[in-house]
Amino acid sequence: MGKEKESKSSYQLKVPKGTKDWDGKDMVIRDKIFSTITEVFKRHGGVTIDTPVFELKEILAGKYGEDSKLIYDLADQGGELCSLRYDLTVPFARWLAMNSSVQSIKRYHIAKVYRRDQPAMTKGRMREFYQCDFDIAGTYDLMLPDAEIINIQVEVFEALGWSGQYTIKINHRKILDGIFQVCGVPEEKIRTISSAVDKLDKSPWSEVRREMTEEKGLDPEIADRIGEYVVLKGGEELLAKLQADAKLSANESAKKGLEDMALLFDYLKIYECMDRISFDMSLARGLDYYTGVIYEVVTEGSAPQTSEGQAIKQQGKGESKPKKGASNVDGEEDRSNDPTVGVGSVAAGGRYDNLVNMFSGKGQIPCVGISFGVERIFSITKQRLAQDAASAPIRTNEVDVYVMAFGSGLLKERMAVAKRLWKASIKAEFSWKAKPKLPQQFKAAEQNGVPLAVILGEDELKDNKCKLKVNGLPDDHPEKSGVLIDMANLEEEVTRKIAELNGAAKITNGVSAVSL
Amino acid sequence: MGKEKESKSSYQLKVPKGTKDWDGKDMVIRDKIFSTITEVFKRHGGVTIDTPVFELKEILAGKYGEDSKLIYDLADQGGELCSLRYDLTVPFARWLAMNSSVQSIKRYHIAKVYRRDQPAMTKGRMREFYQCDFDIAGTYDLMLPDAEIINIQVEVFEALGWSGQYTIKINHRKILDGIFQVCGVPEEKIRTISSAVDKLDKSPWSEVRREMTEEKGLDPEIADRIGEYVVLKGGEELLAKLQADAKLSANESAKKGLEDMALLFDYLKIYECMDRISFDMSLARGLDYYTGVIYEVVTEGSAPQTSEGQAIKQQGKGESKPKKGASNVDGEEDRSNDPTVGVGSVAAGGRYDNLVNMFSGKGQIPCVGISFGVERIFSITKQRLAQDAASAPIRTNEVDVYVMAFGSGLLKERMAVAKRLWKASIKAEFSWKAKPKLPQQFKAAEQNGVPLAVILGEDELKDNKCKLKVNGLPDDHPEKSGVLIDMANLEEEVTRKIAELNGAAKITNGVSAVSL
Repeated sequence: MGKEKESKSSYQLKVPKGTKDWDGKDMVIRDKIFSTITEVFKRHGGVTIDTPVFELKEILAGKYGEDSKLIYDLADQGGELCSLRYDLTVPFARWLAMNSSVQSIKRYHIAKVYRRDQPAMTKGRMREFYQCDFDIAGTYDLMLPDAEIINIQVEVFEALGWSGQYTIKINHRKILDGIFQVCGVPEEKIRTISSAVDKLDKSPWSEVRREMTEEKGLDPEIADRIGEYVVLKGGEELLAKLQADAKLSANESAKKGLEDMALLFDYLKIYECMDRISFDMSLARGLDYYTGVIYEVVTEGSAPQTSEGQAIKQQGKGESKPKKGASNVDGEEDRSNDPTVGVGSVAAGGRYDNLVNMFSGKGQIPCVGISFGVERIFSITKQRLAQDAASAPIRTNEVDVYVMAFGSGLLKERMAVAKRLWKASIKAEFSWKAKPKLPQQFKAAEQNGVPLAVILGEDELKDNKCKLKVNGLPDDHPEKSGVLIDMANLEEEVTRKIAELNGAAKITNGVSAVSL
Repeated sequence: MGKEKESKSSYQLKVPKGTKDWDGKDMVIRDKIFSTITEVFKRHGGVTIDTPVFELKEILAGKYGEDSKLIYDLADQGGELCSLRYDLTVPFARWLAMNSSVQSIKRYHIAKVYRRDQPAMTKGRMREFYQCDFDIAGTYDLMLPDAEIINIQVEVFEALGWSGQYTIKINHRKILDGIFQVCGVPEEKIRTISSAVDKLDKSPWSEVRREMTEEKGLDPEIADRIGEYVVLKGGEELLAKLQADAKLSANESAKKGLEDMALLFDYLKIYECMDRISFDMSLARGLDYYTGVIYEVVTEGSAPQTSEGQAIKQQGKGESKPKKGASNVDGEEDRSNDPTVGVGSVAAGGRYDNLVNMFSGKGQIPCVGISFGVERIFSITKQRLAQDAASAPIRTNEVDVYVMAFGSGLLKERMAVAKRLWKASIKAEFSWKAKPKLPQQFKAAEQNGVPLAVILGEDELKDNKCKLKVNGLPDDHPEKSGVLIDMANLEEEVTRKIAELNGAAKITNGVSAVSL
């Protein structure tokens, strides 16, 4: 075996586990999701910040609890020790702490984050994946930024065409803490019991209760008292019920949380968001740094699927596995086909008033934010598009004009015409063959869905004319074979025709474009 | 000292060496550069691909010659060994090799790459930096993709407003190889002698000659023969001179290169690019994988500066240091203030016909590409904007309307108006205070340069009216204090006014917007 052959075959040609290349139509769908989300962020005054993909190792330390073992480290090649960012929130808090002149900002950040987790690729669980974050930092009147962040979630999912197909689960850390106190959970166990509650979206109460009592040593009576609260979900009527709960109202933390929630609901009514909301006492969120309102957006695909494609009932038989914390993070299996793995929440966030203070020690900057999981939104969108046979075909490039020629090639003439179009900011291409055949040129234009053709011929050029043709017209259309235009008016005629076609496309495809 | 305090002070609050946060106006300028470049790429039919930020270590091995020591590795935490990408070209070749159904593509990719090099931050030399790559893969008639790639360089720099301020240095690997053969360089020394020639943009010939003879053991007579060629630069007349050189024309490699170059120049005349080109025999490019045309775009800021701000003459006294290869890559100094460090080339690339074959072994896919150095383009653009006092102020957000109120706060009314505007896709914000003072609201709008205000007052609301005001009108303007509009027509009136202002801005700021 030759040395060259050997070096080629000595490793697998692949991307690292849990990562993927984005290309073709997937890329077009993904970019559409990005631009939809970005448009909403900008509508609310968002500005973007871009932080390095790796941070000093110490910056990430102590921020993620037991998930810290999933952080990717860079090799020690001399110099500073660094790790790949685990989310976009901690880098944002670090940036706020470093830029002390900034006391308030609405920032968005769309970028990749890294977690050495067990991947389930087709469900959008990756080791490298995008987050789209919007966060509001600054001291404002109560619940106003929180209400706007929830309104942004509604605007994003409505803009994505998910109307009626998603639910924003919402809760408040202070209410939860109050419940735990009222039920008698010892102070030092509150965070770990809260983590157990957070598993209620994947495990039945019986399993969570077992974890509380057997693994975490909670008195079974206390667990049962918790169980009465955390199964509750609803809307304003649940808020009224909790406010009427004498024990809860007597608890300072719960009282504060319930007051916040009442004000928030007032504002969400103005923002027409109440019918998207589920006030859900089982929502606890894993991360330690939340201090107020918390939320998570779920959709049909969020729940685990059975092999028949049905969602496993939430109160099922406990087949589901915990999402994280498997010790074998380097096993090679992909859990995409594991029916007990769902897509999970498609967006999540909350208020975190103390995180900046962990870096700066210069005082608090209260923050509230939301993170959209693009891979999960993508995987659901893609499934939906695949089922929707009526959706328009997705083009991968944006070329408007294919410049072609009859007969003897006319290469330099095609080049000169393309140059004229480019100078007029018109997207154009032509065959990179000196003498291509006309059918090949039409085929190339057709494959890319290029809507227009400029066709050059020696006879027409002698008269300073060429043909402008709309591709794909029906055979009986009067302009099927194109119309003669003056070369002098080339850019003008082409621009006019593109505008005409775009106008028509907007009218016929308006709905499908928005709901891509 | 308390434990909490200790953990705060035990490390520096900073980003890793050679990286930076992008924010504020820098971010706006950078995004404008991205969108300008992307527009050109799409005009030429480019589609984008996104590859993982890290690749399997073996994928990068053996691709970068002596620069391989600058590759960042991930820590071995079990599982695969990975490295951060060093450029976007090798991942593209790996993608092509993995996707064997793709025989041709025009792809662009804008993303960060990583090099453990000595940073010079203000000059745009970073350890984490953006590249904007456009590459054409596929088998086409000779020099057609090459000509288009050079035309794309011209279109990008013209679109950036750099007209007349940049030069595309161009050469051909086959001509260089022919020169080395004709001069008598032994075959095994050709690549290392080529690397020495590549330093002529930073070092005088005397220094490069010394490296060839003393360090690389080349016969001084051979070096002197090379010296006669590599100082040559020009345009078509240089091509004619080289074609008339009997020895060169007799060399197969040089002959092929000169033929390519003649055809390329023919095409570049059609593309109106010849006045931007310098056919420069000293251009060699460091990377091994180039096989044909090579190019590098330089501008005034590319050359090293003396402390007086003057460019050091290319034939100066040899103060300049080699750009790379310093053994102390982990030293902590930043060379931003080192006068012998210039910004370097702002774009570079060439033809590489064998790289895909290194991965697939399934046969060649010829490629030609260009990489734009965004950080360097940014640092030059920023300097230029700083000197241009007449340039319009740069806004950091895009909000069009600030919703405000006289008197008693009218919080819920402001919220409801904002919601109406958002639903109409209008970018709007308002003060997150229940009872803000009117001057504070005007100040907030002014600070962000928000062009319009919707002003609510109790009396006006009783009549179902509000005021619409253009911010910053002169005192004697008849509409200085706004005009009353019907609340029923709110969205319509606001949209119309925004369109009116944008139209006016386009007329007055057209030039400065393009040349940002």
